Amino acid sequence: MENIISQDLLHIWHPCTQMKDHEKIPLIPIKKGRGVYLYDFNDKAYIDGISSWWVNLFGHCNAYINQKLKEQIDTLEHVLLAGFTHQPIIDLSARICALLPKELNKCFYADNGSSAIEVALKMSFHKSLLDKKEKKKFITLSNAYHGETLGALSVGDIKLYKEVYGALLLECLQAPTPKNEDYEKELQVFKELIMQNYQDICAFILEPIVQCAGNMHMYSTDFIKESVLFAQSYGIDVIFDEIAVGFGRVGSMFALEQCGVVPDYLCLSKGITGGYLPLSVVITKDEIYQKFYAPYEEGKAFLHSHSYTGNPLACSCANAVLDIFEQENIIQINQQKSKYIFTRMQELKNFHQVSNLRSRGMIFAFDLIKTKKNRAGLIFFQEALKRGILLRPLGNTIYFMPPYVILEKEIDFVVDCIKEILQTIEL
Amino acid sequence: MENIISQDLLHIWHPCTQMKDHEKIPLIPIKKGRGVYLYDFNDKAYIDGISSWWVNLFGHCNAYINQKLKEQIDTLEHVLLAGFTHQPIIDLSARICALLPKELNKCFYADNGSSAIEVALKMSFHKSLLDKKEKKKFITLSNAYHGETLGALSVGDIKLYKEVYGALLLECLQAPTPKNEDYEKELQVFKELIMQNYQDICAFILEPIVQCAGNMHMYSTDFIKESVLFAQSYGIDVIFDEIAVGFGRVGSMFALEQCGVVPDYLCLSKGITGGYLPLSVVITKDEIYQKFYAPYEEGKAFLHSHSYTGNPLACSCANAVLDIFEQENIIQINQQKSKYIFTRMQELKNFHQVSNLRSRGMIFAFDLIKTKKNRAGLIFFQEALKRGILLRPLGNTIYFMPPYVILEKEIDFVVDCIKEILQTIEL
Repeated sequence: MENIISQDLLHIWHPCTQMKDHEKIPLIPIKKGRGVYLYDFNDKAYIDGISSWWVNLFGHCNAYINQKLKEQIDTLEHVLLAGFTHQPIIDLSARICALLPKELNKCFYADNGSSAIEVALKMSFHKSLLDKKEKKKFITLSNAYHGETLGALSVGDIKLYKEVYGALLLECLQAPTPKNEDYEKELQVFKELIMQNYQDICAFILEPIVQCAGNMHMYSTDFIKESVLFAQSYGIDVIFDEIAVGFGRVGSMFALEQCGVVPDYLCLSKGITGGYLPLSVVITKDEIYQKFYAPYEEGKAFLHSHSYTGNPLACSCANAVLDIFEQENIIQINQQKSKYIFTRMQELKNFHQVSNLRSRGMIFAFDLIKTKKNRAGLIFFQEALKRGILLRPLGNTIYFMPPYVILEKEIDFVVDCIKEILQTIEL
Repeated sequence: MENIISQDLLHIWHPCTQMKDHEKIPLIPIKKGRGVYLYDFNDKAYIDGISSWWVNLFGHCNAYINQKLKEQIDTLEHVLLAGFTHQPIIDLSARICALLPKELNKCFYADNGSSAIEVALKMSFHKSLLDKKEKKKFITLSNAYHGETLGALSVGDIKLYKEVYGALLLECLQAPTPKNEDYEKELQVFKELIMQNYQDICAFILEPIVQCAGNMHMYSTDFIKESVLFAQSYGIDVIFDEIAVGFGRVGSMFALEQCGVVPDYLCLSKGITGGYLPLSVVITKDEIYQKFYAPYEEGKAFLHSHSYTGNPLACSCANAVLDIFEQENIIQINQQKSKYIFTRMQELKNFHQVSNLRSRGMIFAFDLIKTKKNRAGLIFFQEALKRGILLRPLGNTIYFMPPYVILEKEIDFVVDCIKEILQTIEL
C-alpha cells in the first residue's frame, strides 16, 4: 500500500483536502468495490457509510447496473446531443418526468451538480430578459451549498468553500434557514426580503428538507412550502437543488413530494447514475421552455452546452437505477430500513458527546459536542476506518448515509462500532 | 424514426440548440456507433466528421477501450477521491505528467471542461491571496471560448453564448487575438494591457494554436510564446485551455509543445477519455501546489470538489486512450493522415464559396462566403447529412475534425461529398 500511496501523492491533488493532512492521515487506495464494501490493497473491507459522497444507491459494482452499462458500451458509447439523440436519454427523460409533477416536463442535461445549478441560474436569468425584465439577483438560504463553480458557489453559504473567492462571486440576497420546525421568524425575514427586492430577483434557490453539505441540517417542509409559494406569488422562479436529496435519499423519490410545491427548476445529479458516472439534469416547465422557443433569428435560444451532455453510458446507468427502484420497491423497503437504523441509533443518545441526533429517510446524523480534541470529527473518521467503516465527517458532524442495499447485520455493525468509538476513544 | 423523434421532443431540451429549428431540421436518433460511423434507426450510416463535438479519437465503441472499461466496471466503478484513491487515477496522473514538461506535475480533476476552467481560475486567484495580493482580474483573448459556467463564460468572448448573461459575469481584460501570423500590433496591445494592469491580474487564459469554438481560428505560436513569457515576467499565471486541442488534435500530443512555453495551469478534457465519458483535469506546478500545502489550521487548502471527481471508469478510458497513443504511434501516423486530408482539401479552393482553407494537425476548416441563403452553414450541414456525413458547422465555418481512425477511402468520400455539395447546392 505504501508504494501506491506515494505514487498517488507524487501527482494527485485531491479534492476538498488539505494535502498536508496526508502526512499524518493515510490516504487509502481502494482496489475494488462490492455492494456496500470497498476493499483496499490489503483486502481490508470498509462499509461505505457515506455512499462515496452520497452518490451510491445500490452498492458498488452492482451486477444489474454493470450488465446494463456493458450492453450500452457495445451499442453506443457517446454521440453529441445537439441535433442528435439516442434511446437511453429518451427513456430516461420520459421516466424522470413520469415520476414528477406533470408541470415538470423538460429535461436539460449537464455533467455534474455544479453545472446543473449554473444551467438553472442562467436559464432563470435569461427568462427574465425574455420577459423584458432584467432580474439579476438570486435569493438563497443561509447554510446552503450548491456547488463549486463560481455561479454555484455564489448562491451557497458555506464559508469554508466560499469565503476565499468572495471577490469573484455574485452578490446574493440571503434569508435565514429555520433552525428547526419553528420558522415564523425566518419566514418573516424571507417575506420582507422578497417584498423589498422582488423586482430584481429572478430566482429563489434552496436544498429542500436537508442542507447536506451544511452539516446535514434538516428543516421544516412547511417553511419550504410557504416560502416557495410566497416567492412564486411575486413572479420569482424557484430552483430546487435535489442533487443530494433526490432519488430516495430523504424517504420519498424526490424531496418535492414532501413539500407540496412544484419548483420551476429541479436539479438532479449524484444518485441519478447510482454512483457510477457523472450526470446531471435540470427539469423545468413547458411554459419556461416555450419562452425560449422562437424563430432562430430572434436569438432566444438557450445555448448552454457541455461536450458530454446526455452521455449514453451515464444515461444507461440512470435507467438501470430506475429499473431497480421499480422492480425492488425500494422507496417502501427503505422506509423500514430507515426506521430500523434510526431506532438503533437512538442508543447513541446515551453518550454525552452526541447531540442533535436526526434523520430524514436514509440520512442519519449527529454532532459531536463537548470534545476535547481538535478536529474530533477527523479522529472519529480514523477510528471508524480502523474498524472497517467509511464515515467521512463534515467538521464535527458525523453522518451515516449508506447505500440502500445495506443489510441489518451491517447496520448493526456500524452502530456498534460508533458506540464503541464513543465509549473508548477520547474525542 | 418519427416516433422516436417525437418522444425525444416531448421531454428533452437539447444543448446549444434553438428547439424550434427541429420543426424543419430533423433531429437524428442514433442507434449505434462503430468506428468513424454513427448509425440511425434506419441503419443509415454517418461518418462522424466532427468527432461528436471534438471528443472522439479512436472511433465509436472502440474494441480496446470497451474492453478496458468493462474490466474496470467489474473492479471498481467509483469511490470518492477525498481521502481515497485508486489505481486508474494513479496510473493516469503519472502518465499525463510524463508526457508534459517536468514542471507540470500535479493533477487536479473535475468532470467537464467548464469545471476545469473554474478550477484553474479559482486556484490562480486563491494563490494570489496566499501571496498576500488580491489579484482579481483575468486577461483573455478576443474570440476565445472557455466553457459555459459563469466563471468559464466570463473569460470567453463568443457573443452568441455570452452576451445575454453579461450582468452575471466577471469583467475581464481582453487583448486582441492576432488575425494571422502577423501579430506585432496585437502583441503591443497585450503588453500595454499587462503593463497598465499587472498588479490586478492573476492569470492570462488562452486556447493555444486554435480557438475552436471561435470558428476554428488558427493563430501564431510565436504570439503565444511572446505573450505568455511577457505575462509570466510580470508575475501573471498562464492558463492553457487545451480542452479542445489537446491529445493530438493540433498535431503534437499537446499544443504547448509547439509553443515553446510552459503554462502554470493546463486544462484538459474532451479527448482525454477518447470520447467515452466526461472527465477533466488541471495540471499545475509543484511550486503552486506547495503554496496551498500547510497545516490545516492555516486554512490554505484548495477545497474545490465535485462528487465524481477522478471517476475510475472515466480514468480507465483515459488510460486505454494513452495505451493506443503509445502502441499505435498515433501522433506520427496522424502527420501523414493530416497531410493527406489537407492535400485533398486543396481541391476545395477552386470553389468561389470557399475561403480561408486552413489546418492544424487533425483540424481542417474553411469559411463559406458569397452565400445567398440565410444560414448557409446549416444548409451545408443538412446536405452532408443526406450524404452520410456529420459536419455540424460553426455558423458559416465548415470544419472537419474526424476521429483519428478515419481511413483514406473515408477521407476521399468526405472530400468528394463536400465538393459535390459546393458544386450542386445553392448555399
